[in-house]
Amino acid sequence: MGTASTNSTKPAMRDSLIAAAFQLFLERGYEQTTVDDIVTLAGVGRRSFFRYFPSKEDVVFPDHDQCLDDMTRFLAASADSDDPIARVCGAARIVMRMYAENPTFSVQRYRLTREVAGLRTYELSVVWRYEKTLGDYLRTRWADRRDGTLRANVVAAAVVAAHNHALRHWLRSGGEGDPLAAVDEALEFVRSTWSPAPASDAPAEETEDVVVVITKRSTPMWRVVREVESSLGEG
Amino acid sequence: MGTASTNSTKPAMRDSLIAAAFQLFLERGYEQTTVDDIVTLAGVGRRSFFRYFPSKEDVVFPDHDQCLDDMTRFLAASADSDDPIARVCGAARIVMRMYAENPTFSVQRYRLTREVAGLRTYELSVVWRYEKTLGDYLRTRWADRRDGTLRANVVAAAVVAAHNHALRHWLRSGGEGDPLAAVDEALEFVRSTWSPAPASDAPAEETEDVVVVITKRSTPMWRVVREVESSLGEG
Repeated sequence: MGTASTNSTKPAMRDSLIAAAFQLFLERGYEQTTVDDIVTLAGVGRRSFFRYFPSKEDVVFPDHDQCLDDMTRFLAASADSDDPIARVCGAARIVMRMYAENPTFSVQRYRLTREVAGLRTYELSVVWRYEKTLGDYLRTRWADRRDGTLRANVVAAAVVAAHNHALRHWLRSGGEGDPLAAVDEALEFVRSTWSPAPASDAPAEETEDVVVVITKRSTPMWRVVREVESSLGEG
Repeated sequence: MGTASTNSTKPAMRDSLIAAAFQLFLERGYEQTTVDDIVTLAGVGRRSFFRYFPSKEDVVFPDHDQCLDDMTRFLAASADSDDPIARVCGAARIVMRMYAENPTFSVQRYRLTREVAGLRTYELSVVWRYEKTLGDYLRTRWADRRDGTLRANVVAAAVVAAHNHALRHWLRSGGEGDPLAAVDEALEFVRSTWSPAPASDAPAEETEDVVVVITKRSTPMWRVVREVESSLGEG
């Protein structure tokens, strides 16, 4: 579930290109920086840049592909006994963990996307890919429900919205506080909306077997007693 | 709440440009059609095109600005007594009505956006504007709730997802069936999730007074009878 492997397997040249790009974006602005400027500062050729990044926009969001892979693998490893909604909340947490790993970079990028319309649009397409990944998983889990597809689409959108609510709040604050605690609180709102069961692994309280009798007030007492007796008899 | 005014106030030249653009998009493809091709076919100058549409992409989605205005006005006309969630569901219905007004055009455009990546991205930014409009309204309505902002963001996303679920289903089917009935069903899923009250103004069914008795299976029958009797006695 972790994304720590991202950093260790990522080639050093890719990291240099990201660092050079952000240095220039902050110094001169995103629009004023060309791919040539970036490769010159990083001391590599243009072809090296395009080996790692299809476009200048992609260098702004270098970790989402890896994060989507991590999320997809986390969802694929789900057991049938897992609560589907708790699972997609866990998947959303992977994304927040990626942002939380590098607060300075995350906040710099957030400010950049506020200034450049094209990057906001790019970000929307990234968000859509996460939402689709969560929705695909939920659609499979709820394939036998009559409203499974609708429910999957709505819950996936709700999870993404809750995640982004916590993320945006954290980024706007300049990366202050614990974003993982904040995202857990936001996701708990979604989870508790559709899954009444407790999220924790704590054992359920011992409950004694209970009989529920619902009867109209006008029902004669002898019929109520018979109903209760027959319910008890089923045990 | 209607969008019928859109057609009557829209200048004829704007309509000709849309018609010419779609004729060419369908004949040669979107990428192969230039703004020059469109204005030549419509028999107007380039400046006329850009007076109505900032870019070639905008002619593909000519009604969203008007629809966003209609939605904003509909939300602004909301009374404090209106259920906020029912109101945003009503607002989402305005969008579906716009699509339903012209099924052929809606289906053509849908097929176009499936083929052209840039149009899908454009569509995501349109969807985001609707979601933001709904979220702004809900944030205001729930300003005094501790979780008001989170709730507003999640519900707005859920409403948009439910609307798009019904819309996509209808567009994929080639515009068959009643999209307004379908969107109502999808929106009812969202409304009933957070607002337990019935959406319709129909009077609630006459219900007889009901007694619910919950008892442990091990409780002796005489105690159950006493419980039922004392519940009835409260009436």
